[in-house]
Amino acid sequence: MDASERLIESTRELLWERGYVGTSPKVIQERAGAGQGSMYHHFRGKSDLARVAIERSAGEVRAEAERRLAAPGPALERIAAYLRREREVLKGCPVGRLTQDPDVMADPVLRAPLGETFDWLRDRLAAVLAEGRDHGEFDAELDPAATAATIVAVLQGGYVLAKAAGDSAEFDRAVTGVLALLRRA
Amino acid sequence: MDASERLIESTRELLWERGYVGTSPKVIQERAGAGQGSMYHHFRGKSDLARVAIERSAGEVRAEAERRLAAPGPALERIAAYLRREREVLKGCPVGRLTQDPDVMADPVLRAPLGETFDWLRDRLAAVLAEGRDHGEFDAELDPAATAATIVAVLQGGYVLAKAAGDSAEFDRAVTGVLALLRRA
Repeated sequence: MDASERLIESTRELLWERGYVGTSPKVIQERAGAGQGSMYHHFRGKSDLARVAIERSAGEVRAEAERRLAAPGPALERIAAYLRREREVLKGCPVGRLTQDPDVMADPVLRAPLGETFDWLRDRLAAVLAEGRDHGEFDAELDPAATAATIVAVLQGGYVLAKAAGDSAEFDRAVTGVLALLRRA
Repeated sequence: MDASERLIESTRELLWERGYVGTSPKVIQERAGAGQGSMYHHFRGKSDLARVAIERSAGEVRAEAERRLAAPGPALERIAAYLRREREVLKGCPVGRLTQDPDVMADPVLRAPLGETFDWLRDRLAAVLAEGRDHGEFDAELDPAATAATIVAVLQGGYVLAKAAGDSAEFDRAVTGVLALLRRA
């Protein structure tokens, strides 16, 4: 990896582990094995680098979802595969955790990818749910948009509960519960 | 309010607004209108004060839930009343947001009330769901514990989505979705 790439990946890791405030340019440079000159050659500063890092993390969250949701098979199976995919649950969601970061939320450029990612995810899940409903997997009354919002919330809340308990089983339990509810819908 | 009470309430507000790292003893004293001497007369320091503040916030979260969940009426109505109670959604959950605070999570004493609160909430909701199931409101297959975990996750995730979007409607949408799923269960 070249220095620019190492700086981006180090920033992604640090934002995930420590958040924005706890991530100084110096810590990024140390983790990346890159000097200050290199950092300011490639990026205007910490917030520019954070923007690139957050956009990349948001892109990966979308790509991971798309891989399962675009697969062949019944809607419920695809949604289950997405919810049950391997995750580093106790590290939290690399995108969702940034909503608790006051400096990220105060900066419209850093903040924009967060809302956009969840909007995309909700709309994508709603499309899969509508498809399943049209194929008779769910009853005709199912509201795809509200149900999709519930699923995204279960994921984000599952991370919170797992972190509070120090146990990823809390995430799994919330996912099991929503899948059972969907199976009856 | 006496100084001790003002210090606790100021700490509660500050933890909610800024988190633990962003809340210095000086900022607490300024908000409380109390001097350093007064703070160290009543509390051993910032972490002692934070412990009292977090335990009080956790107690309020439980009391707010109990008020709706212990009310008379069908289980689903009580759960709906709890989910739809007035909340300062965009400020986030005063307990849940602390799970994203590395200093809180690194301290077993500050951290303990978070997991305990969610355990209590899940068990309380599970008891209401089991009651509803036994009264024929839900089908016999309903798993109260997993469903309760889903409901708590929807709340916590709803806060995250609302914050990301800067719009409390995202919270409401996730709640609407889970209530519709429960109505069919």
